[in-house]
Amino acid sequence: MKFGLFGSAQAKRGGGPDVDSAKGYRDWLEYNTEAEALGFHSTFAVEHHFTGFGQVSATVNLLTYLAAQTSTIRLGTAVMVLPWHDPVLLAEQTATLDLLSGGRFDFGVGKGYRFNEFKGFRIPMEDAQDRFEESLEIITKAWTEDDPWTYEGKFWSYEDVIVEPPTAQKPHPPFWMGAGSPQSIEAVAERGYNLLLDQFAPVETNIERMNIFRDEVEKRGRTFDPYEVGVARGLYVAKDAADRDAAIERRIEARRRVDALAQRPDGGNKASIMSYDDAVETTAEAAMFGTVDEIVEKIAKMRDAGVRYMLFSDGGSGIEGLRTFSKEIMPHFADDEDDMVVARAAE
Amino acid sequence: MKFGLFGSAQAKRGGGPDVDSAKGYRDWLEYNTEAEALGFHSTFAVEHHFTGFGQVSATVNLLTYLAAQTSTIRLGTAVMVLPWHDPVLLAEQTATLDLLSGGRFDFGVGKGYRFNEFKGFRIPMEDAQDRFEESLEIITKAWTEDDPWTYEGKFWSYEDVIVEPPTAQKPHPPFWMGAGSPQSIEAVAERGYNLLLDQFAPVETNIERMNIFRDEVEKRGRTFDPYEVGVARGLYVAKDAADRDAAIERRIEARRRVDALAQRPDGGNKASIMSYDDAVETTAEAAMFGTVDEIVEKIAKMRDAGVRYMLFSDGGSGIEGLRTFSKEIMPHFADDEDDMVVARAAE
Repeated sequence: MKFGLFGSAQAKRGGGPDVDSAKGYRDWLEYNTEAEALGFHSTFAVEHHFTGFGQVSATVNLLTYLAAQTSTIRLGTAVMVLPWHDPVLLAEQTATLDLLSGGRFDFGVGKGYRFNEFKGFRIPMEDAQDRFEESLEIITKAWTEDDPWTYEGKFWSYEDVIVEPPTAQKPHPPFWMGAGSPQSIEAVAERGYNLLLDQFAPVETNIERMNIFRDEVEKRGRTFDPYEVGVARGLYVAKDAADRDAAIERRIEARRRVDALAQRPDGGNKASIMSYDDAVETTAEAAMFGTVDEIVEKIAKMRDAGVRYMLFSDGGSGIEGLRTFSKEIMPHFADDEDDMVVARAAE
Repeated sequence: MKFGLFGSAQAKRGGGPDVDSAKGYRDWLEYNTEAEALGFHSTFAVEHHFTGFGQVSATVNLLTYLAAQTSTIRLGTAVMVLPWHDPVLLAEQTATLDLLSGGRFDFGVGKGYRFNEFKGFRIPMEDAQDRFEESLEIITKAWTEDDPWTYEGKFWSYEDVIVEPPTAQKPHPPFWMGAGSPQSIEAVAERGYNLLLDQFAPVETNIERMNIFRDEVEKRGRTFDPYEVGVARGLYVAKDAADRDAAIERRIEARRRVDALAQRPDGGNKASIMSYDDAVETTAEAAMFGTVDEIVEKIAKMRDAGVRYMLFSDGGSGIEGLRTFSKEIMPHFADDEDDMVVARAAE
């Protein structure tokens, strides 16, 4: 199996001259350079704006800095919110990261779901889907066309442009897209993108989603590659049951804070990531929060259902948690064993 | 005196699978990490789009990668073209660079002058000045306001936003702005920005411009700091006269290529950077192209006129040229001597 990471660094405003706002970024960089050394395959960073608690906003820039400090870990966005960005500038910025990192960029994209961001940028939520579609069309063109092109869009237009630099990965870096409903999952398969499954959904729900995706990929005559589905989960390597339970309580609190930013004043935000209840039992079931043995058991369950790529959001056990994970959990899912499982499944 | 660099890396599109497009970026990174070791104070990178020969487009990203590889050299844009960018996204991206680099960011800004870029982005050249003004107002607000703010602009609007991360430099990174005419220079002084003087103007012209700037700064009751004027010059450390003359010919060719991109179809682009003739004599006089002794003499002339900060664009002598410059030219302008000159001038 492959294990990756996803999350955000934190750099708050204000707090006086003694506050070192860069510390949160440096901690995140250290966490990820260490993760590379510990065998993690990838790291995905969020993009958010105007939170007031310092979530990463200039995601591609932060990943570019990390690119210079690392050599193997893949560098992803999860997700870049396309409606905010000029697609050509974003194509240039991400191509620059892909080129400088030697082709390690994974482009997770989304259309946005937080009300406070649409309001902040003065972009109607109703335009999100159209902007998303148009942006993807332009970015793909910008990455792949060697000859000058012109585009007349509803939101963005360009005349006689050739977009540089080129990407390192050919024809372009992989796209990753989150999806929940069967129609959305089918659309991801139709585009030929990879699939991100969210961290709050129950395990069974994500396995069903993966199976729908596999069917849709195979229906289109392509081979399903389980590494093209990244299943996100919270991770907390706990000392014992009490430590685990306290971390779950903190997780519920953090999620409520984020949901409050995302919600519309009329309560009408129906994004699937906001659709799960936040009871202790549901949260505990979905998250990889537990002792080493508990986490091994939870991952084994997902592996047995066909999951091969998991992306962990840090629930607070930090670098120490990654070290324990690398030493005591990863060996249970080393490639040999994995290949055997795949081989058995194929018999 | 302080010596910095400015220029562009190159990453072309196309050319087949064997072409390593990243090489130009890696060469630029190596050039600049070496420059830091050789005592150069700063490096400024251009921003350009759609050139077809691979000039840097995602400037802040490239500088962010360099930030991770260096520890003292200042990292500047020369210049970021504000009309292309969402000001809040740009404020976030540059603040991220400033934070990650420990406050080494210099923000050179411009309103753009190349016709092919305005055409490519479908932005009327007539809007350049208004976009530039509005962008500066928004970026300054984004960098400095700790409380949520709302802005209603002609080109960009935001509602109830707090922009993160904060910059490392307080109240914000220095702005640098190019100017040629007396009115433009006065406007830079009025804003409280630092001044960039272009590489093609004759030496005397730039000295006059610096003197106008000093007068305008002092008229406003502020102390003139000569390190707040960066005089750009081409640099080529030549083996002998023939080597120098060949480099000057190549410089003229390269400039014609860039002017062709900048020109409007009606020939009406009157940007001051395009106003100098490109005869061999004019080019040779303005550029620091020559043997070690010739360059020492040229710099001494500028130093004696009060210039304290020069920014060099590589004319082709590359890292070897920087090494020679550091070893054989810099010592002539070491701080002691410089301080003596300043002291004498003040007597």
